[in-house]
Amino acid sequence: MRPPSADARGAAEERLAGLATPAGALGRLGDLAVWLAACQGAVPPRPVDNVRLAIFAGDHGVAAHGVSAYPPEITRAMVGTFEAGRAGVNALARAHDVHVRVVDVAVDDEVTGPWKVRRGSGAIHVEDALSAEETERALAVGEQVAREEIAAGADLLLSGDMGIGNTTPAAALVAAALGLPASEVVGRGTGVDDAGLARKLEVVDAALRRVGDRTADPVECLTALGSADLAASTSYLLTAARAGVPVLLDGLMAVACALTADRIEPGVAAWCAAGHRSTEPAQSLALDKLGLVPMLDLGLRLGEGSGAVAAVPLVRSAAALLSDVALLAELLPGG
Amino acid sequence: MRPPSADARGAAEERLAGLATPAGALGRLGDLAVWLAACQGAVPPRPVDNVRLAIFAGDHGVAAHGVSAYPPEITRAMVGTFEAGRAGVNALARAHDVHVRVVDVAVDDEVTGPWKVRRGSGAIHVEDALSAEETERALAVGEQVAREEIAAGADLLLSGDMGIGNTTPAAALVAAALGLPASEVVGRGTGVDDAGLARKLEVVDAALRRVGDRTADPVECLTALGSADLAASTSYLLTAARAGVPVLLDGLMAVACALTADRIEPGVAAWCAAGHRSTEPAQSLALDKLGLVPMLDLGLRLGEGSGAVAAVPLVRSAAALLSDVALLAELLPGG
Repeated sequence: MRPPSADARGAAEERLAGLATPAGALGRLGDLAVWLAACQGAVPPRPVDNVRLAIFAGDHGVAAHGVSAYPPEITRAMVGTFEAGRAGVNALARAHDVHVRVVDVAVDDEVTGPWKVRRGSGAIHVEDALSAEETERALAVGEQVAREEIAAGADLLLSGDMGIGNTTPAAALVAAALGLPASEVVGRGTGVDDAGLARKLEVVDAALRRVGDRTADPVECLTALGSADLAASTSYLLTAARAGVPVLLDGLMAVACALTADRIEPGVAAWCAAGHRSTEPAQSLALDKLGLVPMLDLGLRLGEGSGAVAAVPLVRSAAALLSDVALLAELLPGG
Repeated sequence: MRPPSADARGAAEERLAGLATPAGALGRLGDLAVWLAACQGAVPPRPVDNVRLAIFAGDHGVAAHGVSAYPPEITRAMVGTFEAGRAGVNALARAHDVHVRVVDVAVDDEVTGPWKVRRGSGAIHVEDALSAEETERALAVGEQVAREEIAAGADLLLSGDMGIGNTTPAAALVAAALGLPASEVVGRGTGVDDAGLARKLEVVDAALRRVGDRTADPVECLTALGSADLAASTSYLLTAARAGVPVLLDGLMAVACALTADRIEPGVAAWCAAGHRSTEPAQSLALDKLGLVPMLDLGLRLGEGSGAVAAVPLVRSAAALLSDVALLAELLPGG
């Protein structure tokens, strides 16, 4: 995989140091601007006008086993809410001019569509989430969606998620990637109680035991421990990185998928920035592995890509600072 | 002082709890939305379109005593950079549609203007920053500027600062308000070295000893330990709160002034939110006293109001969430 431009990174660092601001005064926005310039191969960076979010939706067999505070029917209802523009992520996206599309990869309903791989993914503690062929189709969905978003002129791509129970397979993917036990990765998701948390831990633990050393292969992990929507999201992020389009990550699902994509093809992380710190421990563990630190930590537990959308203005702030602030050389007499 | 509307706060909390999102899922954006609604007295809150920043500029006698990494001439140069729209805060303000004005209260140059109280304020370790009459004029400046910004339709007011050496009087104001010694409030400002930090500590310590129990009166603090620009900024924030216009605070100068305003008339803090965590210890101490927690912590050390401007999109995010997200009752059958 081609890395972000080292030349542009160097030139951006030089420009940052030459701005008419005290050294280091732009803090993490300075770092973010340098990353963006390196991804774009352009100094100063171009404005980040066209920001596009794809929400990958799907149901999860584990949701029938008490791992979530919500019933599986909510997945379908929330897809409708996204389509009506009335969900949290829609409100944020309108406020910050982010384009939203919803991709139904595996919602468990009668609705068919160009992206549907199956109705729900398997309950990972007792069976593989997908067949190998379904994994291939889900990866193709993510690739195709990313290609369409890039063709639409995306300056920055975001992935969102919707699927009751999805923090369970996402935590399993992180555990598998990092070689950690269930107890270190499992969190309360959207707010499961103690009994639900215990069931979730059992499910992830059973899934990891069931799968054994197949965890060595990241695509096998998607098949065995993931889901169709997580496989599509992984492929979407991988395709963005391959195409040299920067990515702003959201919470656990986005980061678990970025980690998986980086296992499939090392170098994906270099194209990613992290938008928001999740309350899920697995997200922080995966971010540490990817070398990323979130810009925001606001206690959002909404999913949907909302933490990434909330952080989009910071990317725009960073671009504006590195492109619009005067250079010291311009202000000096004769400069 | 009239507090934000308790009725609107209650109605906003009820609306937040009724949104079609998991309980607590909006995290700190939910809290921010409730605060905004209470300030506006409107549920759902109105959009925060008209955001206005006033940068209060002035020089400080202490700058001649080695407390800053930069020479005093930079203050004048930066005012010119603001006016040319080429400073960091201008770049951020353009990116986020924030109106900027610069108010030269006490820059040490030949330029006169409607707001100029004096050329530089006194070196607080050896003399009062201002005469009592100058303090009155500076307070009148801040009040008048706030009234103009409110008349221009401000939905949210921000204060910024420019003045080499200004973290020294601001730290002294915080020490005086909280009854703390210099050693607990002094930080490196825009990047002073160890020797400069030691001088800064001596200056604040000497100033506090010189002023003695005059610190019991907040207006006396502005006269003795503050500056014309800090007095104007304090009055600007006080006027905003009296008029019921919410305020988003920036770094140490804004927060020291908010703390002083809240001493002059208790209740100012209720009209304030905090934008960005400063690296200056005095800012965190003052925020704790005011009961505020910043939304951002990006290591910005730019001053100018930049941390508040960078946080403006979060206020807009909060407003959008509480006004645009569907209510659960709307989604339920027959609801």
